[in-house]
Amino acid sequence: MRYKAVISYDGTLFHGFQKQKNHRSVQEELENAIYKAFDQKKEVYASGRTDKGVHALAQVIHFDLNLDLQRRNLKKAMNSFLPQDIYVNSVEKVDDNFHARFNAKAKTYRYLLDLNEINPLLVNYRYYYKGPKLDLSKLDEIPKIFIGTKDFKAFSKGNEKENTVRTIYTFTIKNIDNLLVFEIKGDGFLHNMIRLMIGMILEVLKGKLGVNKLKEILDSKDQKLTPKLVPGSGLYLVSVEY
Amino acid sequence: MRYKAVISYDGTLFHGFQKQKNHRSVQEELENAIYKAFDQKKEVYASGRTDKGVHALAQVIHFDLNLDLQRRNLKKAMNSFLPQDIYVNSVEKVDDNFHARFNAKAKTYRYLLDLNEINPLLVNYRYYYKGPKLDLSKLDEIPKIFIGTKDFKAFSKGNEKENTVRTIYTFTIKNIDNLLVFEIKGDGFLHNMIRLMIGMILEVLKGKLGVNKLKEILDSKDQKLTPKLVPGSGLYLVSVEY
Repeated sequence: MRYKAVISYDGTLFHGFQKQKNHRSVQEELENAIYKAFDQKKEVYASGRTDKGVHALAQVIHFDLNLDLQRRNLKKAMNSFLPQDIYVNSVEKVDDNFHARFNAKAKTYRYLLDLNEINPLLVNYRYYYKGPKLDLSKLDEIPKIFIGTKDFKAFSKGNEKENTVRTIYTFTIKNIDNLLVFEIKGDGFLHNMIRLMIGMILEVLKGKLGVNKLKEILDSKDQKLTPKLVPGSGLYLVSVEY
Repeated sequence: MRYKAVISYDGTLFHGFQKQKNHRSVQEELENAIYKAFDQKKEVYASGRTDKGVHALAQVIHFDLNLDLQRRNLKKAMNSFLPQDIYVNSVEKVDDNFHARFNAKAKTYRYLLDLNEINPLLVNYRYYYKGPKLDLSKLDEIPKIFIGTKDFKAFSKGNEKENTVRTIYTFTIKNIDNLLVFEIKGDGFLHNMIRLMIGMILEVLKGKLGVNKLKEILDSKDQKLTPKLVPGSGLYLVSVEY
């Protein structure tokens, strides 16, 4: 019996989604909760990994269980064995062919870059920028260079062989009282892609790089030209579409 | 030279404001930062203690320094030695007679009680209520019984000798999309007073206690009649007036 679940988590105290030795991961906590609730060792698959410190409002996972359970009971059982920084929002039975990663059609991420003074209650939930004053006149223009089907190799830290072509459907930057909200929807994202794009956009906002130069970097497919990465604390996986 | 500072902190990882052995406190972190920045061992005084897990948006402190510093430099020096969950918003020189606690004329606290489903990114910043459905028809009526100058002994866990008369100026409960926001302003509050008031108001909302009965408990001055205390995670010190 295959189950799909929508979960949210606070990434602050995790070294990312994926299981790793000697580090706390979301995957391990989920598999532990399933084991404690149902005495079954099962692997959990997500729509994609999230890095250390990155949050999820609606990550999608799937897993198999040798049990036929009602949605409500399964949700309740998992939440009662999960730590407080992970929560199962909903669970449903799905076809045996469903795969959280391979069937995902689109993902939306949000990034919060705050230009205001630090609020210590929010430091794990956004990136507080503390540098020279930014030029915010091109917030509509800049993200357009990334929209469409392109080779994003320059904006990744992955290996050489992987297919680095992705499609970005929408990408907006809104300034809400000096909180810059980046919202980006695509068919998939390379490792570190969003944080590298925003890191380099920040260079444009600082006046250190022209918009045309940023486009040239994208066209170059040269990973050495994207040295700036914003912290994970500002990044949220908002939704996954199937 | 006496300095007054307005600070904010995330109470999640503190055992309260006050210094204590073997537990992390806001006071200790502030005194450590002053020591590291200026090599002076100084005591820090707050407008009042906050308990374990309780947050502050604008706590007021004072301390003495054998140094005449510009506001901006003092603020910068302290913030550079403070951990990320405490932040100094402003500093100013004050008269030697100023005392953060004794001169405080009014304090405002806020409590967030969330009736919605759990968001794991907010569990340390509100209290998620998970009990029987609440009757929200008397949110305007209930807090009125606490307004005015009264003996709040029943709503404290303090010792017998202390003066337990306090004045509450305003007390409102707003329902914002099933987030109950309690806001209360008074000349001062007894230990646990707000969390006990809200804990007992919750009993009224559950239908376990009438509004008149709650008033009788206040009049009784009997601490044994107030067994319910809501968690510190939902409580915020919002401002202090002088």
